[in-house]
Amino acid sequence: MKKQKLRIGLVGLQAGRSWAAVAHLPALRELSDHYEIVGVVNSSLESSRAAAEASAIPRAFGSIDEMAASRDIDLVVVTVRVPLHYDAVKSILSHGKHVYCEWPLGRTLAEAEELAAMARERSVVAVAGTQARVSPAIRKLSELIKTNSIGSIVSSSIHGWATPWGATISDTKNEEYLRKQDSGADLLTIPFAHTVAAACDVLGSISQLSANVHTRYPRVKALDKGTYIEADAPDYISVIASLTNGAPLSMEYTGGHSVYGDAFIWQIEGTTGQLVITASTGHTQLANLAITRYSPSRQEPDVIEIAGMDHFGPHTNVKEIYRRLASDVINGTHSAPSFEEAISLHKLIEDIRFSSRTGQRISPATLSLPRFVSQF
Amino acid sequence: MKKQKLRIGLVGLQAGRSWAAVAHLPALRELSDHYEIVGVVNSSLESSRAAAEASAIPRAFGSIDEMAASRDIDLVVVTVRVPLHYDAVKSILSHGKHVYCEWPLGRTLAEAEELAAMARERSVVAVAGTQARVSPAIRKLSELIKTNSIGSIVSSSIHGWATPWGATISDTKNEEYLRKQDSGADLLTIPFAHTVAAACDVLGSISQLSANVHTRYPRVKALDKGTYIEADAPDYISVIASLTNGAPLSMEYTGGHSVYGDAFIWQIEGTTGQLVITASTGHTQLANLAITRYSPSRQEPDVIEIAGMDHFGPHTNVKEIYRRLASDVINGTHSAPSFEEAISLHKLIEDIRFSSRTGQRISPATLSLPRFVSQF
Repeated sequence: MKKQKLRIGLVGLQAGRSWAAVAHLPALRELSDHYEIVGVVNSSLESSRAAAEASAIPRAFGSIDEMAASRDIDLVVVTVRVPLHYDAVKSILSHGKHVYCEWPLGRTLAEAEELAAMARERSVVAVAGTQARVSPAIRKLSELIKTNSIGSIVSSSIHGWATPWGATISDTKNEEYLRKQDSGADLLTIPFAHTVAAACDVLGSISQLSANVHTRYPRVKALDKGTYIEADAPDYISVIASLTNGAPLSMEYTGGHSVYGDAFIWQIEGTTGQLVITASTGHTQLANLAITRYSPSRQEPDVIEIAGMDHFGPHTNVKEIYRRLASDVINGTHSAPSFEEAISLHKLIEDIRFSSRTGQRISPATLSLPRFVSQF
Repeated sequence: MKKQKLRIGLVGLQAGRSWAAVAHLPALRELSDHYEIVGVVNSSLESSRAAAEASAIPRAFGSIDEMAASRDIDLVVVTVRVPLHYDAVKSILSHGKHVYCEWPLGRTLAEAEELAAMARERSVVAVAGTQARVSPAIRKLSELIKTNSIGSIVSSSIHGWATPWGATISDTKNEEYLRKQDSGADLLTIPFAHTVAAACDVLGSISQLSANVHTRYPRVKALDKGTYIEADAPDYISVIASLTNGAPLSMEYTGGHSVYGDAFIWQIEGTTGQLVITASTGHTQLANLAITRYSPSRQEPDVIEIAGMDHFGPHTNVKEIYRRLASDVINGTHSAPSFEEAISLHKLIEDIRFSSRTGQRISPATLSLPRFVSQF
C-alpha cells in the first residue's frame, strides 16, 4: 500500500539563499516519505517559475490564493517576511488548508490572534515555526531537567547577541526592515522570542517579569550603502523574571556581535549541579547549541551528548517541526508548535513591552506558555 | 623639618589573617611618610596585646573608647565585622577623631545616616572603604570614558559571582553571619555594592532601576561542620537600569563560584568601540581587574595598560584610600570616599530592595551617587 504524502506548496523561495531554500527544502527532502513538494509561489509568476525550475518543483503559482485553492495542495508553508504573514495565512486558511507559518506569526498580537481564531474555526493543523523549542539540544535539556540531572532549578541566566541589531547593517535590502518596529521582525520578536519560548519549555513558565526594551541605535550605518538608516525596532532587551517555582531568571539580548566570549551563554544552576549552554549566535532557532554539565562531585565537566546533532544545520530544527506536523495531520496528535502557543508567545512579548513602557512588574496568567510535550 | 604623621589606631587585627593584617598593615607600611601605627584594639585586652606584639605595634588598648580618647591617636580605622561598625564609629566620633570605616558603613541605612550626621557635626574626616571606586582599573576606566576612548556609552552589562553566597560555606565561624540579612554584610551590600558604586563612577549615575533580590538557598551546607545553617541574606541580585544618558545597564550577581568563564565580566558598548573588564572574582573591591578595548577598525583587541598595578594585592586599593585620606586631613581636600557618599550607596541598596519587594521601577533623586573626582 502506498503511503499517503502531504502535498506542499511553498510561499517564498529564492533558490540557494532564502530561508526556505536553506532550511525547508533540505528538511523536506529528508522527509520524502511524508511530504511531496508540489508548488511554489513568489511575488510574481516569473519569480515563481524561476524558483520552481531552479529547485525542480513541479508547479509555479501566480498567487498565494491560487495555490491555496488548488486541489493538489494539502499544506501551505509561509516563509516570507513577517509583514506578509497575515495576508498569506488568511488566504490559506480561507481555503481550509493546513498551514506552517514561520515565527513570528503576525506583526502584532492582534494579527496573530485573528489568524489563530480562523485556524480554530477551520479545524486545520496550524503550525508556527518556533523551532528552537524542538531543537535536539532543547529537547535534551528538557529531559535533563525532568530527570533531575541537576536537581531543582535554583536560578538561570541567559545572555545572547544577535545580528543585524548592532551599530551597523551590511545588506540594506534584506536587513533594513528588521530595524523598523512596524515590521514586527526584530531582536525582541525573533531571537529573543525563540529563546524565551525554548527557555520556558526547559525551565517552566515565567510567573512575573520586569523588562527594559531599548533602541540604542536610532541611526544605523548601512555599510553597503555608506549611508545611515533610521531605526526604531528594539536592539537591546533585558528581562528579570521569576519562574513558577520561585527561581530567578535573567535574560539579556544585545544587538550586534559579541566581542568577547560566546555570543550565547545560558547558565542553569540546580541544587545538585549546573548546566551551561553555549553557541556562536543568540539566534537559538538555528544555533548549534552545546551543553555542559558541572557537578560539585566531579573535577571535570561533562560534555552532554545530544542525539540528532549529526549533520546539524539550518534544516535540523525545521525538519523536526515537519516530522511533528505530519503526525499531527495524519494521526491527530498535537505535537508541533501551534498557532495557539504562538499567541502565548506574542502575549509574552506584549507583556515585556508593557513592563518596559510602564516600569511595572507583570505577573498575568497570560504569561503561562503552555508546556510543550514532545511526541517523538 | 619633620613631616607630621597621622597617628593611627586599628580596630580589629588578627595577625596574618584578618583584613586589617592582609590589606591595611601593608598599605600603611608603604605610606610610612604619612602614617604611624600607634595602637590596636580587639575584643579583649589579651587579644589586643597579642596583635600588637605580633605586628610590632607599640600600644594595645582595652577598648575602642579608650583608644579613641587617647591623645596619641588622630585617626581610628575600623575593620571589624559590619554589625560592630555602628558602636565603634560612634565611640570614635564622640571623641572627635578622624575615622576610616570599612564598607558597608552600617548594618542599615539608619545606622549609616546617624554616623554620617555625627561626622558632619564634629567636622572630622570620615572615610568609608568603598575601595573598588579608587582602584587603578576603575580610575583608568573613568579616564577612558571621559576621553571618549569608545565614544558615548550605548549599553553596559555586568555579571559577577562571589563567595560565600553559593550552596555551601566552608568556614562557619567566619562565614555564617554573612548569610544572615541582619548582619548587613551580604552579596548585595558587599560585592554588589562595591561594584555598582564603581560602575556609577565610570558610567554616570543610575536614573532608574528595577530589581530582583533573592535568597535562593535558605539552607546552606556548612562543609566544615557537615551540618546546615539557615540563611536569609540575599544570594542573588539582578538589576535592570538606565543611566542618566539613557543607556541601559544590567547587573547580575550570583552567589557562589562561576563554573564557566570569568567570575566577573563587565561589558561597556560605546559608539566607537567596546571595553571588556574581567576578573577572577566578583569582589571588585579586591579583584585584579583587566581591561580590554575592542574597536571595529582594529582586528586585534588592545589590552589596556593600567598604572599602579605592579605588585597588585589586597592592600593596593586600601593604600589609595589612605593616600587620599592623608590629603583630606592635611590639605583639606575631599578626595577619599566619604560617609556622605556611603549614604548614597546605602540608599541605592534600599531602593534595590524596595523595587524587588514591590515590583516598582524606581527613579528617585537619591539614586545619584555623587561622581567621584580623583585628586591624585
